[in-house]
Amino acid sequence: MPLLGLLPRRAWAALLSQLLRPPCASCTGAVRCQSQVAEAVLTSQLKAHQEKPNFVIKIPKGTRDLSPQHMVVREKILDLVISCFKRHGAKGMDTPAFELKETLTEKYGEDSGLMYDLKDQGGELLSLRYDLTVPFARYLAMNKVKKMKRYHVGKVWRRESPSIVQGRYREFCQCDFDIAGQFDPMIPDAECLKIICEILSGLQLGDFLIKVNDRRIVDGMFAACGVPESKFRAICSSIDKLDKMAWKDVRHEMVAKKGLAPEVADRIGDYVQCHGGVSLVEQMFQDPRLSQNKQALEGLEDLKLLFEYLTLFGIAEKISFDLSLARGLDYYTGVIYEAVLLQTPTQAGEEPLNVGSVAAGGRYDGLVGMFDPKGHKVPCVGLSIGVERIFYIVEQRMKTKGEKVRTTETQVFVATPQKNFLQERLKLITELWDAGIKAEMLYKNNPKLLTQLHYCESTGIPLVVIIGEQELKEGIIKIRSVASREEVAIKRENLVAEIQKRLSES
Amino acid sequence: MPLLGLLPRRAWAALLSQLLRPPCASCTGAVRCQSQVAEAVLTSQLKAHQEKPNFVIKIPKGTRDLSPQHMVVREKILDLVISCFKRHGAKGMDTPAFELKETLTEKYGEDSGLMYDLKDQGGELLSLRYDLTVPFARYLAMNKVKKMKRYHVGKVWRRESPSIVQGRYREFCQCDFDIAGQFDPMIPDAECLKIICEILSGLQLGDFLIKVNDRRIVDGMFAACGVPESKFRAICSSIDKLDKMAWKDVRHEMVAKKGLAPEVADRIGDYVQCHGGVSLVEQMFQDPRLSQNKQALEGLEDLKLLFEYLTLFGIAEKISFDLSLARGLDYYTGVIYEAVLLQTPTQAGEEPLNVGSVAAGGRYDGLVGMFDPKGHKVPCVGLSIGVERIFYIVEQRMKTKGEKVRTTETQVFVATPQKNFLQERLKLITELWDAGIKAEMLYKNNPKLLTQLHYCESTGIPLVVIIGEQELKEGIIKIRSVASREEVAIKRENLVAEIQKRLSES
Repeated sequence: MPLLGLLPRRAWAALLSQLLRPPCASCTGAVRCQSQVAEAVLTSQLKAHQEKPNFVIKIPKGTRDLSPQHMVVREKILDLVISCFKRHGAKGMDTPAFELKETLTEKYGEDSGLMYDLKDQGGELLSLRYDLTVPFARYLAMNKVKKMKRYHVGKVWRRESPSIVQGRYREFCQCDFDIAGQFDPMIPDAECLKIICEILSGLQLGDFLIKVNDRRIVDGMFAACGVPESKFRAICSSIDKLDKMAWKDVRHEMVAKKGLAPEVADRIGDYVQCHGGVSLVEQMFQDPRLSQNKQALEGLEDLKLLFEYLTLFGIAEKISFDLSLARGLDYYTGVIYEAVLLQTPTQAGEEPLNVGSVAAGGRYDGLVGMFDPKGHKVPCVGLSIGVERIFYIVEQRMKTKGEKVRTTETQVFVATPQKNFLQERLKLITELWDAGIKAEMLYKNNPKLLTQLHYCESTGIPLVVIIGEQELKEGIIKIRSVASREEVAIKRENLVAEIQKRLSES
Repeated sequence: MPLLGLLPRRAWAALLSQLLRPPCASCTGAVRCQSQVAEAVLTSQLKAHQEKPNFVIKIPKGTRDLSPQHMVVREKILDLVISCFKRHGAKGMDTPAFELKETLTEKYGEDSGLMYDLKDQGGELLSLRYDLTVPFARYLAMNKVKKMKRYHVGKVWRRESPSIVQGRYREFCQCDFDIAGQFDPMIPDAECLKIICEILSGLQLGDFLIKVNDRRIVDGMFAACGVPESKFRAICSSIDKLDKMAWKDVRHEMVAKKGLAPEVADRIGDYVQCHGGVSLVEQMFQDPRLSQNKQALEGLEDLKLLFEYLTLFGIAEKISFDLSLARGLDYYTGVIYEAVLLQTPTQAGEEPLNVGSVAAGGRYDGLVGMFDPKGHKVPCVGLSIGVERIFYIVEQRMKTKGEKVRTTETQVFVATPQKNFLQERLKLITELWDAGIKAEMLYKNNPKLLTQLHYCESTGIPLVVIIGEQELKEGIIKIRSVASREEVAIKRENLVAEIQKRLSES
């Protein structure tokens, strides 16, 4: 080691990069292979290192593996979400993980710097999809689809500063439902809110509220307050931070960073404190400034109609007209909404969770037209369920309660108390598998009975079938219930039927 | 336009890039916005162009969207595959779409040039995953997991020359099942082959055969034929092409491109023509050259044991010991296998399909150790179902038969013959949704009854509930069967129960 201190900087770098290289393909990994050693700059010093290579196994920053425990929770939640989407007549679809870079640019406002680009390997310039909405709009335009109700569950990627604690990752799952097409006003929009309610109620996450606003009201409010039109989207994006930042900080950002006049910011400040039910909509019709603005009036008319439909759907009391809701993405043009949990599900001893919004969406009537060479528009409205946050809440709750989940669905374990019974076990398990029964056995020639029974207990397998010399001689099989430890002998030829009977009873 | 001919090359390029830009975020797309125009170099000439922007909407080369029709077929096939994996006790898991580049390098042999790299945006160097096996090995090593039976369904990405006709894409789905852990020989390996048989039989794709070999036999054969050890992997990768290329072309590649002596190539040629059942294993034990090779003998011993277990599983007749099977990937160390359809499912008028292998896998005992700082090994064996090819076969078959699939699951449609019945329809459909019934209606205030009934017929919705003035007055609802066109009147309060009764009967 002291030798290394004498090395010039470049030799150091070469040595380090050599040490950090993964072992080559034909190398076992235990000891680095000869061909690598031959390449080394400083052969003698290296050798000592190569026997303990200094590499760290990692996954990319902001990502994570999903363990079987995670997967079971996710599968249950996604099943509920997807079955709600299907209940409302949606079709499934999928798009590639990446799009041409130009498909995604200028769709996301201030967030577009967070896109993952692919390396130019001699071909098209590509980026990983940032959400499922822009690919959907591209799909509609490309295939000239004028009408479609679809859901899409898939991964999206954003290069955000990862904050693992809050359940935010750079790779995450989105669950979107969208209705594209020219329809009578507010009927699809109301259905989107109904779907959010059904899903959040179904998941039993506790009480929730859906904030609703309209981009035209937001813009009308900006105009009424004296925001120059060129600053609309930038100020919108500041307002969008109100759920995470205090008003005074948002005001500071608007004035100091975005050059808004202080008195204009204060006028906005008055509006963004307003929230309420349909009565607030009525009240805003009377607002001297807003009622002068044609756009804002259109938005208010639509919200009034929306509340009428929400009442018929029986969900009006879950909805709050909230003037502070702005939604950061550029593409919204009409109604916007965001669902928040009202009380985090705190059990005794549970840390209060700050999970932010659990569903959001809105109307985007211009996005499809951006992809159409002739600018033909297809009006759209949709929603995205914040499943990652929901996974996190459910996992935290299970952790607090000490709930465990089975990560396999195995119904029957094939065991033997004797040596040299592998052949019989293999024949038995084949019968079970071929009958569609979920079955496991240990991959050992001569496992101990206790080991086999322990395996069932620790993995939650309910039934064991046992074969030994006695059973083989008498043409029987023992069935053991893992929970009660009761054993019954049955005829070997009735095995499948007996198992199926027991499984259907439990 | 004539003006453009006079422009210098650089101005041309600037103009073109301007024309090809997507519209900006605040622009509706129909007419490009003012801020872009202001930026333009040649404002006056540009304007005429901007009204008909010349952009083409595309998706990345070698990728495709999955339409609702595709999704329905995929969902059915994946359900069958996953339920087989679960029947064998596997847990689900997932890993990120990308890994550190160094995690993936030197694992895939000649194919590693096909990896998608992400752009260096100031952070780690990342690549999209190329398969699900290397991430699994990384997961085991990173979490020090010594034993695991897991399945993983996910997308992988390879920059291959896309050949859309044969159903090959740059983004595709893999379905993997793997057993990691130190067990008695050939028991997990035999189970992998059993799983392939269950899945291929279950999918009813027609007769199939699983070719089996062992990397140690391949290497032993190379050694016995006189291939220098440094050329083993390169020659292996040539042999792997035998299913797509004729022997003479493979021989040419080995001799001309990879520098193998012609007589060595010819010796290999003799072996790779051999295939058969367990009797060929016995025959190879007697082979004067192979039987001198320790590695090859180990492989033959294991194959003999494997055939014993396959017989107990009742699948030995589906398996062919095939000395031409080599498998291109570097990481295999023992048994390798590949399933091929024996007769493509040709119906009258159907084109014969050349789909290649539909499942493959093998033993890779060294891969996990490559990720462990101390080189601790975790032996693994696994399989991958070629679902993309299977999707393709099933879709082609459906096309030939003219089979159509429903892309939604909607059970009930809410209709009205009268104007101004939106409110009543909304109330009715809420009842259905809240009872878990899959229901749709048209998003129109006053749709025509014929339009509504046509919608049901074209989308395959079986039941219609009809409400009009008469029904409202009498407190009844009409239920119509779309197929028989029969209508019955029921009491409004019995709606949900009556619908559920009819749905459970059908």
